[in-house]
Amino acid sequence: MTVPSQAHTSLTSSQVARNFSSKSSPSAKTGGDMEKERTDKSAVKVPKGTRDWVGSDIKIRDRIFKAAEDAFSRHGGVALDTPVFELKSILAGKYGEDSKLIYELADQGGEDLALRYDLTVPFARWLAMNSTQQIKRYHIAKVYRRDQPAIARGRMREFYQCDFDIAGEYDSMIPDAEILRIAYEVFSTLGLAKDVTVKINHRKILDGLFAVAGVPDDKIRSISSAVDKLDKMSPEEVKKEMTEKGLEGSVADEILEWTKYNGDIPKILELLKNNEKMFANEKIKQGIDEMSLLHNYLDAYGIADQVSFDLALARGLDYYTGLIYEVVIELSAKDRSAETRVGSIAAGGRYDNLVGMYGRKQIPCIGISFGVDRIFTILKARHEKEKQKVRGSDVYVMVFGGKNGLLVERMGIARLLWDAGISAEFSPKVKPRLPQQFKAAETGGIPLAVIVGEDELKAGKVKVKVMGLPDGHPEKEGKLIDKTDLAAECKRLLAEDAQQANGDQALPIRN
Amino acid sequence: MTVPSQAHTSLTSSQVARNFSSKSSPSAKTGGDMEKERTDKSAVKVPKGTRDWVGSDIKIRDRIFKAAEDAFSRHGGVALDTPVFELKSILAGKYGEDSKLIYELADQGGEDLALRYDLTVPFARWLAMNSTQQIKRYHIAKVYRRDQPAIARGRMREFYQCDFDIAGEYDSMIPDAEILRIAYEVFSTLGLAKDVTVKINHRKILDGLFAVAGVPDDKIRSISSAVDKLDKMSPEEVKKEMTEKGLEGSVADEILEWTKYNGDIPKILELLKNNEKMFANEKIKQGIDEMSLLHNYLDAYGIADQVSFDLALARGLDYYTGLIYEVVIELSAKDRSAETRVGSIAAGGRYDNLVGMYGRKQIPCIGISFGVDRIFTILKARHEKEKQKVRGSDVYVMVFGGKNGLLVERMGIARLLWDAGISAEFSPKVKPRLPQQFKAAETGGIPLAVIVGEDELKAGKVKVKVMGLPDGHPEKEGKLIDKTDLAAECKRLLAEDAQQANGDQALPIRN
Repeated sequence: MTVPSQAHTSLTSSQVARNFSSKSSPSAKTGGDMEKERTDKSAVKVPKGTRDWVGSDIKIRDRIFKAAEDAFSRHGGVALDTPVFELKSILAGKYGEDSKLIYELADQGGEDLALRYDLTVPFARWLAMNSTQQIKRYHIAKVYRRDQPAIARGRMREFYQCDFDIAGEYDSMIPDAEILRIAYEVFSTLGLAKDVTVKINHRKILDGLFAVAGVPDDKIRSISSAVDKLDKMSPEEVKKEMTEKGLEGSVADEILEWTKYNGDIPKILELLKNNEKMFANEKIKQGIDEMSLLHNYLDAYGIADQVSFDLALARGLDYYTGLIYEVVIELSAKDRSAETRVGSIAAGGRYDNLVGMYGRKQIPCIGISFGVDRIFTILKARHEKEKQKVRGSDVYVMVFGGKNGLLVERMGIARLLWDAGISAEFSPKVKPRLPQQFKAAETGGIPLAVIVGEDELKAGKVKVKVMGLPDGHPEKEGKLIDKTDLAAECKRLLAEDAQQANGDQALPIRN
Repeated sequence: MTVPSQAHTSLTSSQVARNFSSKSSPSAKTGGDMEKERTDKSAVKVPKGTRDWVGSDIKIRDRIFKAAEDAFSRHGGVALDTPVFELKSILAGKYGEDSKLIYELADQGGEDLALRYDLTVPFARWLAMNSTQQIKRYHIAKVYRRDQPAIARGRMREFYQCDFDIAGEYDSMIPDAEILRIAYEVFSTLGLAKDVTVKINHRKILDGLFAVAGVPDDKIRSISSAVDKLDKMSPEEVKKEMTEKGLEGSVADEILEWTKYNGDIPKILELLKNNEKMFANEKIKQGIDEMSLLHNYLDAYGIADQVSFDLALARGLDYYTGLIYEVVIELSAKDRSAETRVGSIAAGGRYDNLVGMYGRKQIPCIGISFGVDRIFTILKARHEKEKQKVRGSDVYVMVFGGKNGLLVERMGIARLLWDAGISAEFSPKVKPRLPQQFKAAETGGIPLAVIVGEDELKAGKVKVKVMGLPDGHPEKEGKLIDKTDLAAECKRLLAEDAQQANGDQALPIRN
């Protein structure tokens, strides 16, 4: 406890946070990097595909959470938090061939358990268990997939999902439009609204298209999943997959002809209506009616322009039954880098049959899931490009001169500041040197110094100094004030500092 | 999508939240209750010893998180978030015989993994992995123990921990005092400061006492764990355990004589100093010096009176090396019930050797862990006793009269409110009836209604009405205002409402 600490290791916590932040980019700190290390009994590391979050990374992450939670609350959303594991039987049969990616718990007696794979199935389980018929719920939590990690592209084995779902009987397309509005609000708060496009499609239209083109009923889902690959594969490759799945070449060609189209909702609806064969299909007709209604509602919400009706959007999951969507980000060339080529950053759709799979009741649902880790990657890249300051505590309490370190007096000043809700630190040494204290405040990004001296204290006074003022500034030397005015003066100076920081677009210090 | 919903099931989300809140007390919704059900393949439930959190329970829980995070930030704390599972080798050898309570993951190829058992070992692992020498870190997350659940007493298999730790070389007792100050600040923010006592003791003094009384070195930890049971067992039973562990009856008697003492720090230090045999022991002397220093610092922090030096406090964990503490709550008789008999609600101590167990470096640490679920139980009981209102969204947008439901117009009004940061809901029906809309707003605890009518809208006006005003109130019928003034007027009325709610000590709606 009394071993003297070296100045260069004795950082303030905020400084430590900054140091770690720069080291904690996904590419530098995750378990995935250590793949080659193999399981070594004495290894001190995180499991493969996972990471620690610390310091300013958490501040950026929390900005995403707050943008989402604020939007969810504005729309009457209720928070739900479920256990990290579920009974295995709850997850069984929900994920098709991806079920092999589920983490199972060891059999140590008792129930068979598995870590949650997403937040949708736990929500469906909760709906099935409870008597509610209608709810807007949100849930932000980590989910688990035993996938091959791809750290640079943001694919981890433990990662965040941030879900908003509307469950219950509503008049047609009302919740569907609200979900898209919420997506817009979240990205707008994060300053990304201009960079994103919301691709939408409708499973009824897509399935109708397939049927009219000549896909047999039992092949519709598997052909749909081939179409889903059009954003990663060439049309030729997708055609090959479709013919391998048993389609005639001409059928595949007709599908690929239609999936070229995208644009605003009226334009695509016009195309479909003008094609007699398509317009005669009952499913397509229903889809057209719903999309037309949706367009009216999106217009009322002022977001019709944000949406692109894209007939190539298919979405992988089987359980969607109506509207589907994917928010994609188009970064300007200067913003593009390996870390920010992230593809879709939110996605979801209507799933009216999932809750019914638990055999208790049927509740139609629609939901969206925000890809927190991908959005984080984008915001962090911007943050670093703009060299935004991350600020530490509000005040560093220092001692100057005198033959003792006035530790108890510094504690008293810190207490006075804490009582006023101001964050304050001081040197953890009984007799610290002044340059060390200034250095700690500087490296910690702390904007104010309160300097305690023996004579000044006797007169009931302390000195307050704004850090980092240029030489020659009239307040460079700080000013002596009454101890009783200290908290108020610090608050005033901090408010000024916050205003300035806002101008600089620095991250806010407090949530 | 067009199936008409029944009025009584068509609740607003805030109403649903309230309903669920009352059903979601630990005794009603957890997996523990279903023990007798046995693992049934078709069971739709949460795993044993876990629970879902929803609605107003989450609001109460978030108050605890916020009180803690605010205090941690005021003291320069940095957030850390680690994976839910660790390599098994990281957890091995840290928990003694409690290791059998660790949840292991199934062997599906790859690394051997286990769910975290607490937040201290992941922190020690992080310290060992990284270059930091000094940090104040906090971590709020769930931990996992395969214990027998005791729901009524708040013992779950998945439960929250909320930890603050100070790592690094500091001058003696400076971080120790700060940890106790932080505990005080957290409970003070939660309105519990008057009800809690912080019991403290020092492992050096305790070990010295045992040695002087005649306990052999190799029995000190096991005798310490017998003393730890004095809060649950009678002195006679503890004596029996000590003699069974091989102590002479007279040695056990001398220990039990000393463990009777508690009181303020100077009083207990005086007792020890006045006993020649005790004062001659080197460990006790060191402990006395440290406790005396601690007293000075607690005095500077204004919390010396909150602390009781209790020689019977031993704490179970082996790894503590210095100051140990436990925050206990003494509820007045009227507050006591089965749910609120919870014992200690925060605890911790100094552990200077744990990080060194990973063989990389030694960093002294001290920490505290807040028992979120236990504190939650107390706050929830108070909350219910005081019948505090949980408020829903800010505004319910209604349509009145006319031959159509003005849905798009209601959407436009909601959009205008959302844009201004005001939370707003409206009926999810194309043509809702007015009484249904009022009922939804009332049951949802929504304070404002905005009423849209065809003629008024044409004149650019809407009506704003404060809900729940008594008959005869001058503003009972609401007032007609320009649509352009709507957001400002709602904000004004909401600010008034919030002020009144504060007077009633209602829970704040926003974080």
